[in-house]
Amino acid sequence: MAAVLAPPVIILVQPQLPENIGMAARGMANFGLGELRLVVPREGWPNEEARAPAVNATAILDDARAFSSTAEAVSDLTWVLATTARSRGQMKRVLSPEAAFTDLARRAAAGQRTGILFGRERTGLENDDISLADAILTYPVDPRFASLNLAGAVLIAAYEWARISATATDSPDPAPRAEPASREAVVGLFDHIESELDATGYYPPDKRSVMTRNMRDMFHRMSMTAQDVSTWRGVIRALGRAARRKG
Amino acid sequence: MAAVLAPPVIILVQPQLPENIGMAARGMANFGLGELRLVVPREGWPNEEARAPAVNATAILDDARAFSSTAEAVSDLTWVLATTARSRGQMKRVLSPEAAFTDLARRAAAGQRTGILFGRERTGLENDDISLADAILTYPVDPRFASLNLAGAVLIAAYEWARISATATDSPDPAPRAEPASREAVVGLFDHIESELDATGYYPPDKRSVMTRNMRDMFHRMSMTAQDVSTWRGVIRALGRAARRKG
Repeated sequence: MAAVLAPPVIILVQPQLPENIGMAARGMANFGLGELRLVVPREGWPNEEARAPAVNATAILDDARAFSSTAEAVSDLTWVLATTARSRGQMKRVLSPEAAFTDLARRAAAGQRTGILFGRERTGLENDDISLADAILTYPVDPRFASLNLAGAVLIAAYEWARISATATDSPDPAPRAEPASREAVVGLFDHIESELDATGYYPPDKRSVMTRNMRDMFHRMSMTAQDVSTWRGVIRALGRAARRKG
Repeated sequence: MAAVLAPPVIILVQPQLPENIGMAARGMANFGLGELRLVVPREGWPNEEARAPAVNATAILDDARAFSSTAEAVSDLTWVLATTARSRGQMKRVLSPEAAFTDLARRAAAGQRTGILFGRERTGLENDDISLADAILTYPVDPRFASLNLAGAVLIAAYEWARISATATDSPDPAPRAEPASREAVVGLFDHIESELDATGYYPPDKRSVMTRNMRDMFHRMSMTAQDVSTWRGVIRALGRAARRKG
């Protein structure tokens, strides 16, 4: 009997309607997912209006935690996907559901904690949310009708997880990898580099946000290990200290 | 260019809520399905209340026909699936989504007209409906939370159709990527970082070679683009220049 893999955490970024949160929980329960996180839900949390649409999946709502930022909501995860139908011009890998969930199952089998970000009902994820993800998950939608219902997008993810993890559990674990960096460690490294660069006057003020985002994208693509993060910390510390010694 | 396959017809048997009909139409449109049939919808047909939940998929509602029996609704089809989570004790083949939609795509390619039956919100399909089907389609639901939302069940079918019919027809995916960095550019970046670090006294002499190798390994794993290399060059240049200004 294959071990049950830990499913990905579902993270709804600024969901507007409690009803959609409840329906998302129902879809998660249909396919064995359990952990829901909410980033600044518009109508507050907990919210009674989410309960009826969840039908008998209210335990997921009871356990759902709200966070004040996307960064905080993903801080303990080691691999994060962002769902978006549009090409965002970001330098990230774009994965089909098949590829994305096969990879998620493999990571779960290796003990990693994974998550999937879903955006606001009307506008989806913003670039700053996407920049916190390792890769983009995109569904094969008809481009003329690309706007998925939020709960539906979660349902498809839950379905794919169930479908693929069921067949993936007995596949042999590939090459044991070094411990991946937590999201918190990666974000800490960003902050460190950016503050050192700020101190050198590196950023033209009008370009700071785009330059920052490009660099964050690059780091996410690296899939850093915990060891990589501490290597970088050492490099930046050495260069930064040398720079400050001038003063 | 592969021909587009005719998608399965979606047949809702005695749907209770117009809202669910509208949401089902939206999910169909998301994944390229077009033909919806209704068997004795409880609130009558056409129904204005279905329109808002369909968002911009109202053309599917405009074309949807109502029938007075399931038999009539499937009469022109050559292969019909019945969706049910429960084992009905019927002597029919039970197909996973993968098997069912692979088969549907094959039949569509052969010019067959196919359809999928979905039951009432509360009670699902009755045995008389199921007896009109050629096989049963079942989703890998958690048995403790087996009750899928009607529109969600249609959405998953539409998604599976899109996923499987796309791979069944063709697609060597060329995934246009940004220009990868040349090996020369990557090595040039190594040398730059290492010389800046040497200038700060970063490396303990006895550890220089192993630390250098670790960092080079990390860079190789990054699969950098040409743009990434120039971003890094800028960062290291800014920090290095600031460090040297001290002297």
